[in-house]
Amino acid sequence: MPLGRWKSVEHPDIANVQIDEVLHALADPTRRRIVRMLIEEGDRPCGTFGLGIAPSTLSHHFKALRNAGLIRQFDSGRQRMNTTRLVELDAKFPGLVDSILSLAEPERPNG
Amino acid sequence: MPLGRWKSVEHPDIANVQIDEVLHALADPTRRRIVRMLIEEGDRPCGTFGLGIAPSTLSHHFKALRNAGLIRQFDSGRQRMNTTRLVELDAKFPGLVDSILSLAEPERPNG
Repeated sequence: MPLGRWKSVEHPDIANVQIDEVLHALADPTRRRIVRMLIEEGDRPCGTFGLGIAPSTLSHHFKALRNAGLIRQFDSGRQRMNTTRLVELDAKFPGLVDSILSLAEPERPNG
Repeated sequence: MPLGRWKSVEHPDIANVQIDEVLHALADPTRRRIVRMLIEEGDRPCGTFGLGIAPSTLSHHFKALRNAGLIRQFDSGRQRMNTTRLVELDAKFPGLVDSILSLAEPERPNG
C-alpha cells in the first residue's frame, strides 16, 4: 500500500463517526446495496456498480457512506476504488450494520 | 379505549413501515430521547417532555416518529398523548430499535 494512498479523499476517524451518520447512510436502499456489493463481492471501482443511476447521484451516495465510516475510497491508477470499513465500524457499533442489512431486505433472492 | 380514539392523527400500518423511515427517525438524538422517555417513563402528553425545543420543531419530530411507526399519538381530553408502538415494530424489525438505542448513547448516566 503506497504511502498517501488515501490522500485524495477525506475520511473520518471512526472514533468521530456518530451513529446518526451511520443510520442516515443506511436509510437508503441504494446505499445499502453498495455496501452489500462490497461485502459480498469485494473491493471495486466506482464505475462498476451497474446500478443505473446518474454519476452525480452515485457520488452523493459514496460521500454519505464515506462520512458514516462505512466505506473507504482510494485511487488506484486511473480508477477510484471502494472498500468497506466494517471491521473498524463494527468495533464501535457492534452488530449494528449486520442487523440493519439483514432486516432491510430479508427476502432478496441472492446478492 | 373509546372508539375512534386515534382518528385525529394519522398513523401508518406497521406492515407499510419501511426500515428507511425507522432509521431516519432514529438518526436524531432528540427523537431517540423522546422514544427513551416513553419507554422508561410511560405515556405522556406532548407538552411535558421538557426538551427545551420549539413546539414547531417538536411537532416535526413527533411526525417523523409517527411515520416510522415508533409512536402513536391520541387525544385525551385537551391533551395530545404519546405512546410507543415498539411491540408492533419489534415484530417487524426484531431487535432493531433496542440495538440502536443501546449503541447510540451507551454512556448516559440514566434517563
